[in-house]
Amino acid sequence: MRDCCDLNADLGESFGAWRMGDDEALLAQISSCNIACGFHAGDPLTMQQTVAAALRCGVAIGAHPSLPDLIGFGRREMRVSADELQALTVYQCAALEGFVRAAGAQLRHVKPHGALYGMLARDAQLAGAFIAAVASLDRTLAIFGPPRGALREATLSAGLRYLREGFADRGYLPDGSLVPRDRPNALLELDAARAQGLMLARGESIHSVDGSVLQLDTETLCLHGDGAHALELARQLRVDLDLAGIAVRAP
Amino acid sequence: MRDCCDLNADLGESFGAWRMGDDEALLAQISSCNIACGFHAGDPLTMQQTVAAALRCGVAIGAHPSLPDLIGFGRREMRVSADELQALTVYQCAALEGFVRAAGAQLRHVKPHGALYGMLARDAQLAGAFIAAVASLDRTLAIFGPPRGALREATLSAGLRYLREGFADRGYLPDGSLVPRDRPNALLELDAARAQGLMLARGESIHSVDGSVLQLDTETLCLHGDGAHALELARQLRVDLDLAGIAVRAP
Amino acid sequence: MRDCCDLNADLGESFGAWRMGDDEALLAQISSCNIACGFHAGDPLTMQQTVAAALRCGVAIGAHPSLPDLIGFGRREMRVSADELQALTVYQCAALEGFVRAAGAQLRHVKPHGALYGMLARDAQLAGAFIAAVASLDRTLAIFGPPRGALREATLSAGLRYLREGFADRGYLPDGSLVPRDRPNALLELDAARAQGLMLARGESIHSVDGSVLQLDTETLCLHGDGAHALELARQLRVDLDLAGIAVRAP
Amino acid sequence: MRDCCDLNADLGESFGAWRMGDDEALLAQISSCNIACGFHAGDPLTMQQTVAAALRCGVAIGAHPSLPDLIGFGRREMRVSADELQALTVYQCAALEGFVRAAGAQLRHVKPHGALYGMLARDAQLAGAFIAAVASLDRTLAIFGPPRGALREATLSAGLRYLREGFADRGYLPDGSLVPRDRPNALLELDAARAQGLMLARGESIHSVDGSVLQLDTETLCLHGDGAHALELARQLRVDLDLAGIAVRAP
Repeated sequence: MRDCCDLNADLGESFGAWRMGDDEALLAQISSCNIACGFHAGDPLTMQQTVAAALRCGVAIGAHPSLPDLIGFGRREMRVSADELQALTVYQCAALEGFVRAAGAQLRHVKPHGALYGMLARDAQLAGAFIAAVASLDRTLAIFGPPRGALREATLSAGLRYLREGFADRGYLPDGSLVPRDRPNALLELDAARAQGLMLARGESIHSVDGSVLQLDTETLCLHGDGAHALELARQLRVDLDLAGIAVRAP
Repeated sequence: MRDCCDLNADLGESFGAWRMGDDEALLAQISSCNIACGFHAGDPLTMQQTVAAALRCGVAIGAHPSLPDLIGFGRREMRVSADELQALTVYQCAALEGFVRAAGAQLRHVKPHGALYGMLARDAQLAGAFIAAVASLDRTLAIFGPPRGALREATLSAGLRYLREGFADRGYLPDGSLVPRDRPNALLELDAARAQGLMLARGESIHSVDGSVLQLDTETLCLHGDGAHALELARQLRVDLDLAGIAVRAP
Repeated sequence: MRDCCDLNADLGESFGAWRMGDDEALLAQISSCNIACGFHAGDPLTMQQTVAAALRCGVAIGAHPSLPDLIGFGRREMRVSADELQALTVYQCAALEGFVRAAGAQLRHVKPHGALYGMLARDAQLAGAFIAAVASLDRTLAIFGPPRGALREATLSAGLRYLREGFADRGYLPDGSLVPRDRPNALLELDAARAQGLMLARGESIHSVDGSVLQLDTETLCLHGDGAHALELARQLRVDLDLAGIAVRAP
Repeated sequence: MRDCCDLNADLGESFGAWRMGDDEALLAQISSCNIACGFHAGDPLTMQQTVAAALRCGVAIGAHPSLPDLIGFGRREMRVSADELQALTVYQCAALEGFVRAAGAQLRHVKPHGALYGMLARDAQLAGAFIAAVASLDRTLAIFGPPRGALREATLSAGLRYLREGFADRGYLPDGSLVPRDRPNALLELDAARAQGLMLARGESIHSVDGSVLQLDTETLCLHGDGAHALELARQLRVDLDLAGIAVRAP
């Protein structure tokens, strides 16, 4: 059983005059954050301010690159070539890294956003291009992604560090992937999410939606900030981890 | 009299399916290039390919950040706050720097593009924000800009290196600024441009449009790639400099 | 004294995943709305849904075109030529008109948004281009704009209908223009706004910030939906107008 | 055998400072054009100028809506919902229709662009949303699309007019679809293209790449303007049609 765990959240998802999420509230609960890089959310000023807020709270900073789709918030799959993906990954990670460096700190990890997250779990060629982009910038960057699949394999092949990500409030299929959002049991109730979160943080096995046992070995848990429910889960899970003697800290 | 001079050109101004400029032809004549960063031109893949082409030719690479205006090619002034400008300068310079670093090289300078170039020469507050952004990323970066004005002052105050830029093919007003493009004598004929280019490269004085003597002390000359005329000037000026024993090299 | 007045509000300012304003609450109070057209806010699906909501509430629909500036929400002035302005006005008004027509209704007016609103009040050439664009689409469209200035003059010259717009909650300078937002008395308290709104709706004179008497002859009042204060003002003003026997209806 | 045929081309694909295609040369050869609407190419001023040029040449004008993908020129498939597609089709067609109406003329047809062209041939739900959008604007608009597939079926179901489009210079598979661009025989040589174009224009059968006979019944032929080869084909085919007594005119 583990004695520490990383809690991460997607931050900096405002854009221009539009606000999204409660970054301040989340920053109080997490150890790592993934900051939007301008392609699905996050204009330059928002990026700069989010980096500053994360550093004030001692939260480790990662880049959260996306497909170029502002209207669709990066949630719509689009056919990009490996070359395009490599270039847009370098662009976004480097832009965010610039704000982190300008603030005197260091970028620590990269996590793909939205539709790209799923595409990289399935497509070995795209996953390879994504990891090549990150590695070309800084080989000490860790990758956050799903417990299994092409992204993890590409990361390990390239010799970079990979952290398996889990979700406290999402149901899992027997193969370790998430129940799609349009199906039953995609989202867990607060109590079930709290229990699953604690098990994932301890490194224990959980149950998939059909009751089978899943050993995901997740090393970072993703929390959400949209809605009172999500923030409540974040706060309660943090209390549970403290009581269980599991330290919350960045990898 | 000087024995060396930098020749620079704006490159990477294609965007997606659209081509602009003859980067390959220009790269053969210049010692420094300013690469578009995605806000007025230059998608990520174009940026990556332009960086690679510049490195193949041994040309020093600078960032060419712009106001966010793709349709207007960064040529339309817009009212940005100092905070916004600082953030969008970090974003663009860092994004380009990422491609340069990923290719194993180093970013050398920054030159503002289009309408921003003129705004920074006039507005001390914006110039200060621009230089603060560059300095926060890397204090060894040089700034290319007009021979006089707020941008030069802000750069020198911040302790960064400044290179006064001149134009072989543009007429000058008595105060050292360029004749606006919609006025007579804004553009010089090939022979006059060639002569003015040689004088500027030598560090000699030139004549403004009213005949007065101007000592600009330019340290880098900007060449253009649009149109046969411009490329012809680049080629001939390069020959003139060779004959005059003036080495063309990056600062 | 008048027996009717138009109340308008800016709607459809969400964009993609980002929400802004409480359109449903405002629709219950107003007789006309100005819908964002995609350049400062309002993606196509938001436009379509906002048009549908307005029609369900019997609220007259106008287009709310803007400078092309999503990050700046159309609030940053930028230098556009008269030709560019004419084209982007046709583009945006026609796009919104398409949704209105597709829903079986008719576009009724056009009101410039944000920085463009002020630019058109000052610049006769731009105002002429804007009105030429609207007139080329449909000469029965009314223009909403400031009580005085270039936009009103261009509209009347072209023979289109103009409605002077007033603001219940904004202080006025002696010349009839609004107190800029960064100065004292730019925004009125709820009670003062309520009183000023009633006077403007009746067609009575008000006092400018220096106490001088202003006769603005406003024919439509603009209400805002951001913040509880603004919605409260909208609701109370609507009650006051009912008590005063002033019908709220579109022009 | 037919005595007339429509020749169409995609125009207005410049964007801001970037030029693409030789619209003037193509306008001399064609009877219909499809004008980009801003989502893959074509800023508002370009749209206005292209509409004016087409009207000067007596060429019928259609809208050429696309997926929202400027960097990818609308050639990358992306997952859009039927609702999103309907809204972005209304937006783009209405915007272009505005320029046509402002110029005193009438929009005549709609043809989907790039990746959307193929998606609509395959996906009945998206095809239905696309046709519903066009029909909601103007039921007299014709649809240009592939000879067979979901788009044609949705158009005929909705009671709109459909024109089967053919390509002189592209190889066909036995099922009537085009040979993908990355396979052999995707593009025909000039002489073969000229011959195939004449057969298609006459309404005669052609041969697919495996030699089988294909009766496509195409009613409009698409010509391209990029490259000397394409323009040469357009000119020669036009001559061939004249010699064969086939009139070139819009439907």
